[in-house]
Amino acid sequence: MTEAVTEAVTKVVPLSDDEVRLIDAYWRAANYLSVGQIYLLGNPLLREPLRRSDVKPRLLGHWGTSPGLNFCYAHLNRVIKARDLDMIYIMGPGHGGPAAVANAWLEGTYSEVYPDVSRDGPGMERLFRQFSFPGGIPSHVAPETPGSIHEGGELGYSLAHAYGAAFDNPDLVVACIVGDGEAETGPLAASWHSNKFLDPVRDGAVLPILHLNGYKIANPSVLARISEEELVQLLDGYGYRPVIVGGDEPASMHRKMAAALDQALSEIAGIQRAARDGGGTARPRWPMIVLRSPKGWTGPKAVDGLPVENTWRAHQVPLTGVRDDPEHLALLEEWLRSYRPDELFDEDGRPVPALTELAPEGERRMSANPHANGGLLLRPLKLPDFRDYAVPFGEPGTTTSEATRVLGAFLRDVVKGNPANFRIMGADETASNRLGDVFAATDRVFEGERLPTDGHQGPHGQVMEVLSEHMCQGWLEGYLLTGRHGLFNSYEAFVHIVDSMFNQHAKWLKVTRRLPWRRPIASLNYLLSSHVWRQDHNGFTHQDPGFLDVVMNKKPEIVRVYLPPDANTLLSVGDHCLRSRDYVNVIVAGKQPALDWLPMDAAIAHCTRGIGIWEWASSDGGADPDVVLACAGDIPTLETLAAVDLLRQFFPDLRVRVVNVVDLMRLEPDTEHPHGLPDREYDALFTTDKPVIFAFHGYPYLIHRLAYRRNGHGNLHVRGYKEEGTTTTPFDMVMLNDLDRFHLVMDVIDRVPSLGGRVAHIRQRMADQRLALRAYTREHGEDAPEVRDWTWPY
Amino acid sequence: MTEAVTEAVTKVVPLSDDEVRLIDAYWRAANYLSVGQIYLLGNPLLREPLRRSDVKPRLLGHWGTSPGLNFCYAHLNRVIKARDLDMIYIMGPGHGGPAAVANAWLEGTYSEVYPDVSRDGPGMERLFRQFSFPGGIPSHVAPETPGSIHEGGELGYSLAHAYGAAFDNPDLVVACIVGDGEAETGPLAASWHSNKFLDPVRDGAVLPILHLNGYKIANPSVLARISEEELVQLLDGYGYRPVIVGGDEPASMHRKMAAALDQALSEIAGIQRAARDGGGTARPRWPMIVLRSPKGWTGPKAVDGLPVENTWRAHQVPLTGVRDDPEHLALLEEWLRSYRPDELFDEDGRPVPALTELAPEGERRMSANPHANGGLLLRPLKLPDFRDYAVPFGEPGTTTSEATRVLGAFLRDVVKGNPANFRIMGADETASNRLGDVFAATDRVFEGERLPTDGHQGPHGQVMEVLSEHMCQGWLEGYLLTGRHGLFNSYEAFVHIVDSMFNQHAKWLKVTRRLPWRRPIASLNYLLSSHVWRQDHNGFTHQDPGFLDVVMNKKPEIVRVYLPPDANTLLSVGDHCLRSRDYVNVIVAGKQPALDWLPMDAAIAHCTRGIGIWEWASSDGGADPDVVLACAGDIPTLETLAAVDLLRQFFPDLRVRVVNVVDLMRLEPDTEHPHGLPDREYDALFTTDKPVIFAFHGYPYLIHRLAYRRNGHGNLHVRGYKEEGTTTTPFDMVMLNDLDRFHLVMDVIDRVPSLGGRVAHIRQRMADQRLALRAYTREHGEDAPEVRDWTWPY
Repeated sequence: MTEAVTEAVTKVVPLSDDEVRLIDAYWRAANYLSVGQIYLLGNPLLREPLRRSDVKPRLLGHWGTSPGLNFCYAHLNRVIKARDLDMIYIMGPGHGGPAAVANAWLEGTYSEVYPDVSRDGPGMERLFRQFSFPGGIPSHVAPETPGSIHEGGELGYSLAHAYGAAFDNPDLVVACIVGDGEAETGPLAASWHSNKFLDPVRDGAVLPILHLNGYKIANPSVLARISEEELVQLLDGYGYRPVIVGGDEPASMHRKMAAALDQALSEIAGIQRAARDGGGTARPRWPMIVLRSPKGWTGPKAVDGLPVENTWRAHQVPLTGVRDDPEHLALLEEWLRSYRPDELFDEDGRPVPALTELAPEGERRMSANPHANGGLLLRPLKLPDFRDYAVPFGEPGTTTSEATRVLGAFLRDVVKGNPANFRIMGADETASNRLGDVFAATDRVFEGERLPTDGHQGPHGQVMEVLSEHMCQGWLEGYLLTGRHGLFNSYEAFVHIVDSMFNQHAKWLKVTRRLPWRRPIASLNYLLSSHVWRQDHNGFTHQDPGFLDVVMNKKPEIVRVYLPPDANTLLSVGDHCLRSRDYVNVIVAGKQPALDWLPMDAAIAHCTRGIGIWEWASSDGGADPDVVLACAGDIPTLETLAAVDLLRQFFPDLRVRVVNVVDLMRLEPDTEHPHGLPDREYDALFTTDKPVIFAFHGYPYLIHRLAYRRNGHGNLHVRGYKEEGTTTTPFDMVMLNDLDRFHLVMDVIDRVPSLGGRVAHIRQRMADQRLALRAYTREHGEDAPEVRDWTWPY
Repeated sequence: MTEAVTEAVTKVVPLSDDEVRLIDAYWRAANYLSVGQIYLLGNPLLREPLRRSDVKPRLLGHWGTSPGLNFCYAHLNRVIKARDLDMIYIMGPGHGGPAAVANAWLEGTYSEVYPDVSRDGPGMERLFRQFSFPGGIPSHVAPETPGSIHEGGELGYSLAHAYGAAFDNPDLVVACIVGDGEAETGPLAASWHSNKFLDPVRDGAVLPILHLNGYKIANPSVLARISEEELVQLLDGYGYRPVIVGGDEPASMHRKMAAALDQALSEIAGIQRAARDGGGTARPRWPMIVLRSPKGWTGPKAVDGLPVENTWRAHQVPLTGVRDDPEHLALLEEWLRSYRPDELFDEDGRPVPALTELAPEGERRMSANPHANGGLLLRPLKLPDFRDYAVPFGEPGTTTSEATRVLGAFLRDVVKGNPANFRIMGADETASNRLGDVFAATDRVFEGERLPTDGHQGPHGQVMEVLSEHMCQGWLEGYLLTGRHGLFNSYEAFVHIVDSMFNQHAKWLKVTRRLPWRRPIASLNYLLSSHVWRQDHNGFTHQDPGFLDVVMNKKPEIVRVYLPPDANTLLSVGDHCLRSRDYVNVIVAGKQPALDWLPMDAAIAHCTRGIGIWEWASSDGGADPDVVLACAGDIPTLETLAAVDLLRQFFPDLRVRVVNVVDLMRLEPDTEHPHGLPDREYDALFTTDKPVIFAFHGYPYLIHRLAYRRNGHGNLHVRGYKEEGTTTTPFDMVMLNDLDRFHLVMDVIDRVPSLGGRVAHIRQRMADQRLALRAYTREHGEDAPEVRDWTWPY
């Protein structure tokens, strides 16, 4: 037996019998309220025999995990009071919604937030009725649940959220229940290593409680079915000191859990004290708890002759068809009465004083802790003036900058100005995405062994890098939800790894915006670089601009997509996004040297409009073009302007209009998105009857999807990424996808009838030119100077 | 020190000095060829001094991981020959493409597959030139690389692929290099637990080689910076027996690696013998190797005064700007010559006989193993006649079935008929998705402890369940890529978790279809159930039909999407998908009781067409409708037909046409997708001028994106999921999204001018009816019988 196991078995600090009784009563109350929510419409206090009509017609909810969640909650309440802890509670098994709601109601928070659900009999009846009920509340821990920053409907992110909440919150303890189902997911399996990124000096603590109740929906869980020795090795190997609490007899379990929590919290305090006194420099082994308790603990042992408690059958609703099965109805009543509600609630249905006294008060209640409603704590960023970082500018398209490197200088000073309020996350790509200037202001946090050959690793810092997009996203979500600010930079293709996490965060934001008591939080900002068009090193697997399509499916009031075409516009967009609230902002920007198009004043004006005619590049005299060349994204803008250059040479009389799009949502109708252009303004830009050749950064369908209702949509021809690519040169990439300047010229020729037949030879010349350039590339291994060195002609 | 560590240090089995020299020569050759690919255009054998013009103008590739990959390859070759092993090689660090290509060329496979790249001097020159070169081959291990089933561009999936390859291949050993960068990802961290799902009797073995070279792109790696004690605890805890090999002195490292491999392979043989002789029933602790070697091993120690070998600077191209920097050019030549190419290649540039003799022969070469070109081994499934599983049928829309349960019976017999050639993967949702009949034929594989209360767990089986969509997908990919068949069933919303894995697999398939030597493999089949419209238990987080949008961005020749409206159509589609090759098929189907619409003959005909008019539900007499009601998906079909029922009552003269879509790709133009309908056929179904009200399962934009080029697109009005939902009743869900029957009737009224003003009261009645139904639901907690029990009127 390892040290950790032995210790848990032998070192039981005694709770007094009174304390055991009190904490057990609290637990029984929370369990009673959990079962009540799943089953009851009326008769909440069982003052009368349970009738068929007291039971909901549809029984929807998850009992199995709830008693374990309640058990932990009650015990955490005890230590919060005993130690005056600032603690929040993350429920990995978020389907245990009844538990979260039950405890918030017991603590009084629920009635403060939702006064109609009062802390008395009538309120209890409403509490029960509304759960999983049409017009009521969801079955999971949800934005509607006070005290939660974690939904848990999609499993895997609890521990990353917990660590995100703890960063830069030195006085906070984040208790995090990890279900043994969730523990099988990839993101959770990786997140244990977050302890290599937690600074005991400047960050708070995370107390993981791995809850082994043995079963998922229909299967045993892996970690519950390996030997305890192997389990402890695993958790030791993850760098924790596990304390094991196991059993099913309540009184003894209360004593064990209390002892385990006292031990763990003492260890946390000791680690923090040592580190903050400047003593400890070695990475600490943080404590954690393994709670092994039966699934559906205290529920029906068996139903219809089949075992239920401690099996997978306890996962959802252990007793079904209660309205139509008198035996099940009787079992339900017996089950409910087993908690002895008459001892727990007074005549009016209020929790008896002994219960309310066990809970902490005010903001110490986990259900009312302001960290779990982070907008309450949000301080705006101190932002330098982004104009100060503008690139020197002569004429459009004659100088080059690396856009993300320019942004990096701005971010460096954002980092400087906001030392405990802003973090940058990245999957080992912050330098590769050319944001490296930030390392002049901060280190990458790393608590593992550091060597002299490393670059910018340190025990403190505001850049977080780990090769897991899931952890980056989860950390950042936890950081934002507790009222801070940040940015996630990623290779464009690999942000798809967190599609589903984005979905869930966008859903969370959508719901919170309809809850006035949830205060706005900082937006989740993505900076996507190393994008599809410039993956020279890595090729096809690194070429995927489809995250934008995923983003666009979420609620328009939540999502924003920006494609700044150059460095100055990126600065303007970046500043805007860092000031915004409750959005998901997606910025796509290049890192390679690229032409500067706009001086800062023009960049600001252009980004403010989000879309606009580039008159200096147009030749329509401000009205009545023959053709509109539209573009969104840095590479499409380059190819479009190079095409305009060619068109000017070949067709000096052709009236060309160039429209550049920074804010993709401007293309949507104003009825669909708050940024949408009214039809009249759209028509003024794109005309209603002229051909529009649109060069787009992503999959071309996206533009059609946004613009299909617009006048003149039939004239809209979009070029974009059509899933062709490999390791090759920049120009070969656009050529493979028919987005190159020569093909754009061919598109114009094909679609402007007034050019007529006289241009067939020019079209052929363009087609020949493309092939010649490909031949050059294949011979020389690089693009021809003709395309490589092209600049806007002045 | 733990047992494993001690053993590795003490138990070094001696290689003879000759063996060391030989294996080192092989390694040097592979390293030379790797460096050559990254740098050289000409002068491949360095028969002349290295000139500027011999060097590529753009240096693109990854050196850092390559020497480690080559080291393992050489040593595996030795044991393959010594033990006559059937082995494939999965390179987690897939960016080490030069290593894979180098070894395939050394073994002769490369020249067999690509005869122009012969195994001699001119071939070597081509080999070098083509690498990361326009018109050449990608920089990563790619489909183009013989011997590979794993690209590795996106990190995280190597180990899951390896296990997938090993399932049902009892004689195969899959060596799997896990990079320490990849090891930080969630999917990889979870995949170690695959050993709880590997049957030593019927499956092959996986030999993980965790390669700690210490650095990622710019950061140290986590696992290289924890103590060896902690690392061993972690790997022990994952259930392995790690053998550590560490150092940087080649001769000693060769001896250690040889000893470690001998030990590991002996252990594997011992485990398999014990299990297959019926002896061992306990879960074995499989061996694995930890290889700790310098990043960029044997490369430049320092460049420009900065350390390179064994630092992050060795990741990509250690010497840059070689054409313009004579010092770097000299360093490159020195580096290349350090491998002593003259000893390795004969006068004609062929590997000297000693080298070719070290490699195995024929199909024993890892680069030529048929398992790595699975189509070679593909045996068609033995499929029962799906018609035999048809639901009894009276009149359309009068009986109900649970579609996935019906499919489950068919799958049960597919399982029975294909015991070592078909697996079903699911994230603990196979029973929840109502495919439970399969458990009459097989168990869920689980090698952990099993208890009597479990349901259908066993040491062997064809159902794989773990709560990780990443592992399910990764296992299935590995299984398919090695020539077998399978199905991944998932809750619809959570398949987004593997968006990026899907993307990568679709990219792999796209490339393989252009490589004639890669033989077609079975399609990757997704069955998405517990879909957006019926997530009564779980609410908003479980409601997301957006995977279809992700799928549609991939190459049309690869992707197929099916929305069978009932049980019989699901059977027909399911059978079709299991017979197909080289596709990704996505099937969305309901699990709840739903009306049967088509008898089997009609279902087959309908699915074969993929789209069609339901004449029995239409009232346009086969021509000239006033309005088209189209639908795709089971719930939209239900609401559409219920709307038709209402329309018949209110407007008996209205000519309504019902079009049902099973195969979503039929909506695309035939120029865009092989399944696309020609415009004439599309027009014949949808008309060119009549209003079309389209009730769609997913986000409505998807239909517009598919159909925007069609005639009459301006008349197309789509209802679908608009990101509204919670835990509520089925009817409330469609109502929240305006997809309900009453709203469809209102849509018809709003869009059919001939109905004129006379219908305002009916429209109002519909609007009132919706509100009344919502009120009923909110009072009773279930849908009103009027909608719940509706059937098609006969």
